[in-house]
Amino acid sequence: MKNYTSIKDIEHIDNWIQEAKELKRKPLNNNLLGKNKTLGLLFFNSSLRTRLSTQKAALNLGMDPIVMNVTGDAWGIEFGDGTVMNGTTAEHIKEGAAVISQYCDIIAVRAFPTLTDKEKDESEEVLESFVKFASVPVVSMESATGHPLQGLTDAITISENTTKKKPKVVLSWAPHVKALPHAVANSFTQAMQKMDVEFVITNPEGYNLSSEITKDTPIYHNQEEAFKDADFIYTKNWSSYDDYGKILKTDLDWMITKEKIGDAKFMHCLPVRRNVVVEDAVLDSDSSLVIAQANNRTYAAQLVLKKILENL
Amino acid sequence: MKNYTSIKDIEHIDNWIQEAKELKRKPLNNNLLGKNKTLGLLFFNSSLRTRLSTQKAALNLGMDPIVMNVTGDAWGIEFGDGTVMNGTTAEHIKEGAAVISQYCDIIAVRAFPTLTDKEKDESEEVLESFVKFASVPVVSMESATGHPLQGLTDAITISENTTKKKPKVVLSWAPHVKALPHAVANSFTQAMQKMDVEFVITNPEGYNLSSEITKDTPIYHNQEEAFKDADFIYTKNWSSYDDYGKILKTDLDWMITKEKIGDAKFMHCLPVRRNVVVEDAVLDSDSSLVIAQANNRTYAAQLVLKKILENL
Amino acid sequence: MKNYTSIKDIEHIDNWIQEAKELKRKPLNNNLLGKNKTLGLLFFNSSLRTRLSTQKAALNLGMDPIVMNVTGDAWGIEFGDGTVMNGTTAEHIKEGAAVISQYCDIIAVRAFPTLTDKEKDESEEVLESFVKFASVPVVSMESATGHPLQGLTDAITISENTTKKKPKVVLSWAPHVKALPHAVANSFTQAMQKMDVEFVITNPEGYNLSSEITKDTPIYHNQEEAFKDADFIYTKNWSSYDDYGKILKTDLDWMITKEKIGDAKFMHCLPVRRNVVVEDAVLDSDSSLVIAQANNRTYAAQLVLKKILENL
Repeated sequence: MKNYTSIKDIEHIDNWIQEAKELKRKPLNNNLLGKNKTLGLLFFNSSLRTRLSTQKAALNLGMDPIVMNVTGDAWGIEFGDGTVMNGTTAEHIKEGAAVISQYCDIIAVRAFPTLTDKEKDESEEVLESFVKFASVPVVSMESATGHPLQGLTDAITISENTTKKKPKVVLSWAPHVKALPHAVANSFTQAMQKMDVEFVITNPEGYNLSSEITKDTPIYHNQEEAFKDADFIYTKNWSSYDDYGKILKTDLDWMITKEKIGDAKFMHCLPVRRNVVVEDAVLDSDSSLVIAQANNRTYAAQLVLKKILENL
Repeated sequence: MKNYTSIKDIEHIDNWIQEAKELKRKPLNNNLLGKNKTLGLLFFNSSLRTRLSTQKAALNLGMDPIVMNVTGDAWGIEFGDGTVMNGTTAEHIKEGAAVISQYCDIIAVRAFPTLTDKEKDESEEVLESFVKFASVPVVSMESATGHPLQGLTDAITISENTTKKKPKVVLSWAPHVKALPHAVANSFTQAMQKMDVEFVITNPEGYNLSSEITKDTPIYHNQEEAFKDADFIYTKNWSSYDDYGKILKTDLDWMITKEKIGDAKFMHCLPVRRNVVVEDAVLDSDSSLVIAQANNRTYAAQLVLKKILENL
Repeated sequence: MKNYTSIKDIEHIDNWIQEAKELKRKPLNNNLLGKNKTLGLLFFNSSLRTRLSTQKAALNLGMDPIVMNVTGDAWGIEFGDGTVMNGTTAEHIKEGAAVISQYCDIIAVRAFPTLTDKEKDESEEVLESFVKFASVPVVSMESATGHPLQGLTDAITISENTTKKKPKVVLSWAPHVKALPHAVANSFTQAMQKMDVEFVITNPEGYNLSSEITKDTPIYHNQEEAFKDADFIYTKNWSSYDDYGKILKTDLDWMITKEKIGDAKFMHCLPVRRNVVVEDAVLDSDSSLVIAQANNRTYAAQLVLKKILENL
């Protein structure tokens, strides 16, 4: 594997899950693999879990992480081809990515979508420009349309916590006060489609994810119906895809409650707004897997970095 | 010891001082103790000495420091219980602290007071929330009401520089243009109360520290009288405690001068505003211990981290 | 060598170039030299290449880099002597530099010029204050009037890429939308003056660099004439030195084009504004050495740090 930019880069997810579980048991077993190798973590946007867990993963492999908040620490980056750069951007991605490749053995990038320009977001301009112009492997730490480290984490967590051969997993939209990306929901969907689970999505009308992502996954507009016999309820807000980036609904009737989820396990990628997305009673109960998920972020990142390092 | 959040966590300060002096002589003697362990340094506020010395201390112990400016790098953190999070905060401390505990073996936190809400500040909302919700040890890098790494540093520095069995130590208020916290003065007071010194405080009327801190320590409103026969003059501005967070006095008659201090050693936690808090002639003379104090920050932090690591 | 703040600190540049080439062949050969030593990287301004390459260089030598964005992470620094600090600055450089010296074995500083106060800029207030008040070696990561790590890099790159015994090297001004410093052009000029090259400068009238820098280096106001038989064309914008910090010219007739440079190699320190400073066709061609230059930043920094470490 060269780059890791999408759940599509996972050939056999069950094998990856097994490998991640092994890493988790012995996280320092490969701690010479990354010796004298640097991981550049480039943030165009805020990050807590990804920032810390990816550094921890790199350290477990013996790598040296170098963190940079691109906009604040460095220069405004230009992505347009042929642009006359007489505006606010000072460095073109062609140079930027090639230059960073001189100092970092692997480049990890976080860049959120605009949520106003669907075409631009779907082109994955930032991430794909790094892939194109970097001479070293590139890892997505969440891009405009995907969060594949999170999706892999979630697959590991479900595998660890299921008691059934083929559990029922529901991805449920939930309300939020801000317009949020589709990245987490997309990657979760793609991960579940690769696993041996009964996977359904539930969201209000107008909130269907891109049909290129959901494919033949059943979509319910009735949350209660979708939740029936669920083993895992993965919750996430996203803004409308069809009416791109818009908030169509703000009332709390889709908020996740203890009553709604019954015996199912609750999952969320975090950060989560309490009593908007989900009520306290869920997060504060044993049904919640959110901290276990966060913990698995380290091993998902470590597995990806390990696979790339082995291939350098 | 699990957490280090207050001078109260020091049982026998004389033993700690001896241990710190040993660490200072051989700072790399324990450099395998922290191997493969991460220290998360979380800053809600600016920091220079604490930022650098705590990283240096961690490195001396073989730890990997991971620094995060919480607000800029990550998300706005919510501390309220039961809050409907539909405002500006995106992550609750319940998740935040638990999540960071997945990646860091020790969490160090800096969070200044509001200086407008006494009750909130005295509740130590931020620091105590980390203590409550983190599953790993927590170290204060200055909180609303205390700066125990500084207090320990100051105790070490006085011990190193005294020529007497029981020196006279004066904590003196000095003027400043901004409303400053009580944290340093509080922790210094608590440290001195544990040491075999003659300790007095001097400040203008209206500037008494909390009586729960000062206890039976003599307070002089006459600076000259307090300075008589002093061996160490520790200077710090703080805003009014009684008229909470207010600046009652801005004229420079309480500024520390060479003439005032005589043969006493001058101490300050830094940063210090020259010719407002203290005149150049003091800082630029041999009477000043401020750089020696700054140096001891490393060993105070290293001692605290060592004690916690030994207990993990 | 104690400090590295100017190309003048290089005694025999040819020897340095040879040493840097050796480091480049075996970058990890000295990876115990910096063990348990910290490099403090202090940024008063943005940085990408310098930020990453200097960290990489430190890591190659086994050092622990500690990065600080001074203004954002710490406190406003006061440089004036005798100032009554009742304004916005909270820490004097006298304490700042001395304190940082307690935690870092070498201090690297980036501080750009004002471009409004020539006298202040030429005094190198920030860099020289660190040199004066730090008790450890200081390295310039670009100061008001020089960028000696870049100048050394450029000398290495020219040496690596020349096919002639005495190549012709041209430093050409190019247009830009913002007023830029003279630092890179100054240090490049000083480096070329130490090398066995035919060196000329070309810039529009009113854009001559300081005559204390250019000395007897020929200056052409006709770009075409200067470019004749050039082997290397090093391009950089700078604001007027005589009409200090002003932009006198914005039209693109001095922009570097494929046609203009002919068979010469193109060099630039980056970041570069495409189609303002230089057209795409140059940067995207084999004539461009900009990425090779960026790569050599690591070895220039590593050589400087190695020389300082060997002298500690």
